[in-house]
Amino acid sequence: MTQPPTDHASAEARCRELGLSLEKLAVPAGNYVPARRFGDVVITSSISAKDGNTPRYLGKLGDTLDTDAGRESARDAAINCLAAIRSLIDSLDNISHAVRVVGYVNSTPDFDQHHKVVDAASDLLIDVFGERGQHTRAAIGVDGLPLNCSVGIELTIQLTT
Amino acid sequence: MTQPPTDHASAEARCRELGLSLEKLAVPAGNYVPARRFGDVVITSSISAKDGNTPRYLGKLGDTLDTDAGRESARDAAINCLAAIRSLIDSLDNISHAVRVVGYVNSTPDFDQHHKVVDAASDLLIDVFGERGQHTRAAIGVDGLPLNCSVGIELTIQLTT
Amino acid sequence: MTQPPTDHASAEARCRELGLSLEKLAVPAGNYVPARRFGDVVITSSISAKDGNTPRYLGKLGDTLDTDAGRESARDAAINCLAAIRSLIDSLDNISHAVRVVGYVNSTPDFDQHHKVVDAASDLLIDVFGERGQHTRAAIGVDGLPLNCSVGIELTIQLTT
Repeated sequence: MTQPPTDHASAEARCRELGLSLEKLAVPAGNYVPARRFGDVVITSSISAKDGNTPRYLGKLGDTLDTDAGRESARDAAINCLAAIRSLIDSLDNISHAVRVVGYVNSTPDFDQHHKVVDAASDLLIDVFGERGQHTRAAIGVDGLPLNCSVGIELTIQLTT
Repeated sequence: MTQPPTDHASAEARCRELGLSLEKLAVPAGNYVPARRFGDVVITSSISAKDGNTPRYLGKLGDTLDTDAGRESARDAAINCLAAIRSLIDSLDNISHAVRVVGYVNSTPDFDQHHKVVDAASDLLIDVFGERGQHTRAAIGVDGLPLNCSVGIELTIQLTT
Repeated sequence: MTQPPTDHASAEARCRELGLSLEKLAVPAGNYVPARRFGDVVITSSISAKDGNTPRYLGKLGDTLDTDAGRESARDAAINCLAAIRSLIDSLDNISHAVRVVGYVNSTPDFDQHHKVVDAASDLLIDVFGERGQHTRAAIGVDGLPLNCSVGIELTIQLTT
């Protein structure tokens, strides 16, 4: 499941190879912004799988959603995180390296495969950035997310200086 | 619900206009401090609505607390976060901009309005700082908080340099 | 329960005094790394009590685990966080001060003693670093963690420059 980390010359080029669409931003559900810069660091909000204003993959892992659907939800959310960061810094090639992923997994109390769900977001970062995509992670089971979204991904990256 | 961001000349003056009391610190429930500086960044603990040592608005959203009570809880917690930061840096006018809010909402598994609860904290920041109060956010449903508090708010801000 | 903060000349020496083993890393449960540096800051993943690849203290607080067992779980997790940071920076004496602890406590909805559980991690940091170990904290009740671990600890520290 884990790709061997290899450095890609250009994260932007790699996104095009993978056919990732980074133009459309997920609309925030409240009075906040998708991403914010402080110093040479950019952090995103907890972003879910959305097509503009329309949430996708609603429901709870361990109940109405299985691990495969949760993984698609996490991957889509991670793509939305990249789009949010890109909207702030113009090009993903201005990223030095990934720092941290938090994966909030809306799940039932007996679900214990959060790591497999959030791995889909982690795999995407490694796929786009290679070794520079390596990050720390917290994958946790939460008993609810806004609008019953299934997965929220929060991404922190360091910019090149 | 969302105020149009306008820049206020002084966050301190705006707090006085709003009648916010920032003198009294919420007492930590354990072996930690209310706020900590690293570089030009200050982060708070997850702070709940408290009057000194006395927690307020106990209970779970979706159970004993409705969204309006949750919003008051979140707003009070955010005020306590500002007080915590202020105790470390003397004046809120030393803040360059807000960075990140995490809102931990103690709630039942079927509650899905966490964003409306945490918006009360976000609204306060915009009201105090204007455009500079904009921040990223994670609003998540947790199945418990210390002492059965209803909302915990964690705030990160960047200082002027 | 709370030790008075006193500055220790050497965190490394103090770890030896306490008999803490920092050589063995907890193996990540997915496609991520135990710790990552950005600028002068190091953050860990959410790390649980593990002996290499073998999780310890599985289960939920308020159900199969009592607060004392949860505290041992939190303390072990914090030791694993120190080991993760040390593997990246060679010596704990390169740490200027602790910044932040997040304690994810796998618990039942009626459990409300998360602060006592996570205090075991906080106490350890104060015991190792003295006053420099002081940190902000979020202690939250989550309804699940990967592989049914009971406590996940995430630690952020600032390096000396």
